[in-house]
Amino acid sequence: MADHVLALNAGSSSLKFALYELVDDNRPSMRWRGQIERLGDAPRLLAQSAGGRSVDRPLSSTKSHDEAIHAFLEMAREYLPDIHVCAIGHRVVHGGTVYSEPVRVDDTVINILEGFIPFAPLHQPYSLAGIRAASAAFPGTTQVACFDTAFHRTHPWVNDTFALPKSYYDKGVRRYGFHGLSYDYISNKLKETAPGLYDGRVVIAHLGNGASMCAVSGGRAVASTMGFSALDGLPMGTRCGQLDPGVVLYMLQQDGMTAEEIAEMLYRKSGLLGLSGISSDMRTLLAADTPEARKAIDYYVFRIRRELGALSAALEGIDALVFTGGVGENAAQIRQMVCDGMRWIGIEMDHARNADGGTVLSTDFSRVRILTIPTNEEMVIARAAVNFLE
Amino acid sequence: MADHVLALNAGSSSLKFALYELVDDNRPSMRWRGQIERLGDAPRLLAQSAGGRSVDRPLSSTKSHDEAIHAFLEMAREYLPDIHVCAIGHRVVHGGTVYSEPVRVDDTVINILEGFIPFAPLHQPYSLAGIRAASAAFPGTTQVACFDTAFHRTHPWVNDTFALPKSYYDKGVRRYGFHGLSYDYISNKLKETAPGLYDGRVVIAHLGNGASMCAVSGGRAVASTMGFSALDGLPMGTRCGQLDPGVVLYMLQQDGMTAEEIAEMLYRKSGLLGLSGISSDMRTLLAADTPEARKAIDYYVFRIRRELGALSAALEGIDALVFTGGVGENAAQIRQMVCDGMRWIGIEMDHARNADGGTVLSTDFSRVRILTIPTNEEMVIARAAVNFLE
Repeated sequence: MADHVLALNAGSSSLKFALYELVDDNRPSMRWRGQIERLGDAPRLLAQSAGGRSVDRPLSSTKSHDEAIHAFLEMAREYLPDIHVCAIGHRVVHGGTVYSEPVRVDDTVINILEGFIPFAPLHQPYSLAGIRAASAAFPGTTQVACFDTAFHRTHPWVNDTFALPKSYYDKGVRRYGFHGLSYDYISNKLKETAPGLYDGRVVIAHLGNGASMCAVSGGRAVASTMGFSALDGLPMGTRCGQLDPGVVLYMLQQDGMTAEEIAEMLYRKSGLLGLSGISSDMRTLLAADTPEARKAIDYYVFRIRRELGALSAALEGIDALVFTGGVGENAAQIRQMVCDGMRWIGIEMDHARNADGGTVLSTDFSRVRILTIPTNEEMVIARAAVNFLE
Repeated sequence: MADHVLALNAGSSSLKFALYELVDDNRPSMRWRGQIERLGDAPRLLAQSAGGRSVDRPLSSTKSHDEAIHAFLEMAREYLPDIHVCAIGHRVVHGGTVYSEPVRVDDTVINILEGFIPFAPLHQPYSLAGIRAASAAFPGTTQVACFDTAFHRTHPWVNDTFALPKSYYDKGVRRYGFHGLSYDYISNKLKETAPGLYDGRVVIAHLGNGASMCAVSGGRAVASTMGFSALDGLPMGTRCGQLDPGVVLYMLQQDGMTAEEIAEMLYRKSGLLGLSGISSDMRTLLAADTPEARKAIDYYVFRIRRELGALSAALEGIDALVFTGGVGENAAQIRQMVCDGMRWIGIEMDHARNADGGTVLSTDFSRVRILTIPTNEEMVIARAAVNFLE
């Protein structure tokens, strides 16, 4: 029975998983990864093994996260008869101000995490559903919660507060920041491979379906474009990014929208989808030859550049810019559009290197290094789970 | 009968005025300025003449903007028996997307301006009340509307839109920007006195009770920290500045606040007042020796620096930083705190010059010029009024 750890990421309509065998000194080595997607609609299990096998099957009777876990277990029994899952790590959206590191889950922890639902009502309940489903399917197995907010708990106060009465800060209305597992991975990767840059002032652009940027100084987060919710900062696939609070008041007072309608608008109908009218997917927009698609891309790039200037101000300078996430890792055109407008700050891209998609994209004489590093949030979760083994 | 123009600025509880005699080639020369303040509460007329006379009198029966205009007229008859007001210019908060320049007021214009009330429900009605009161008191006299939004109409689309469905942009939910009369004045002053900087990339920080910053390239506005409403961007005396839209949803859904309560919170109880718990006035905070006052100042300075980086990105570099407005012109400590964190971008302050309060505050070797230029929004209004005379 080979020891494994399982990394789970439960969203509103999906359960992503990655299964790692523990090799050598409990180093996690990826064996299978995949997801049960479109829960509650047309659920399907998709998975690939490190050895090149793949699974793609409909799951007509799978509706809940509980059932999704069981679908995963069924697959595991079929393809991996000899495994022993000795710990399960969970991606949890919100750790409030309490958790700046992963924590072993028990009833007290669950209670505390439930208390953060008001801060992330559209996401935190699914994180908890994933933990509950895994606890039921693997009774007695160590469960570890890993927080998207944890990496940002080193923000200084000026980057943690809004200019509201102090009572709001005290009750938890703060600039939490998200995508912390990704920033944690990138920061550790820099420490291993480029310790000189790790010690410096780094802006990491996590550009995926969700998107944010983080300013890191000597490995410690200083500021993020995301704030209290997952709405703020950069425009995303369907989320608005930075928005004047007066627009929300306008939607309420002039358009007569309810809070739920506004949330639906800002979370699901805005961003690249809203601007382009076509798609939330950057690949589709880059392939589309319409003025609206081009304008949506221009806005996206402009906001990244604006935040790059702002986060450099938070760091009092910049030594490296790291692209990661699906768009950051793959969309050379977006990276070029961002960097070509930032020469004034010492960012000089080598366009051939960028097109080739290597790790270092800056010219040899660029004052600021430009890097692409593929992120791996599941690995951060797996390592955290291993750390809680005896 | 000496020809004069009158500049009026009607707020919710005040009517500010400045009276200019037309000398030489219709150049406005200031004769009296002042305000009727605390309308509806304990109204008072305060005024000073260019010659050093001053008026300070209670106006127990003055309640409306109409009555305020008449109080002004009464003062004018008493102190200036021989004047002829040949044009009146009005500061108007919102000119929507229609007005990028001052306009002579007629019934059509009034109708259009009323259509912008939904964009600025707390401010636009008072602008209109001022126009109506002046039209009644000076029938037949040329009335000219000057817009706080007009200077910003050169923003490129990426700085004019939010990442919402296009229908919002089409119906006027845009990044209008405000304080345009001040930016217009500063920009023209640069053109006269420092044409090399005027041609370059300039960030103007208008730091008063309201506060915003504007990126100007070759005299044309490119971006502003203020957006759709007067809430966005920098923290202000009682306004929040940048706020995650998710916080407004939290106030609605978790705190059960009404739209009106939220507007009251964000416009009147936040900003420096909310953070410090003491005062909305920077002078009071600088004099106060409490941790909360210091933290409010730190937040204010940090957000200015963050936006300075962001607006420099919008300009692809920066050649000059101009401070203006009550805080910008007078608070040397704030200017120093802002600039000392921006050396990385080429901003080097000469601390002695800054303390002395001259025009140029940068060292002789600073790559970026730092200037203080006192603003004069009334002069912009007076000049616009003159331009409409035959």
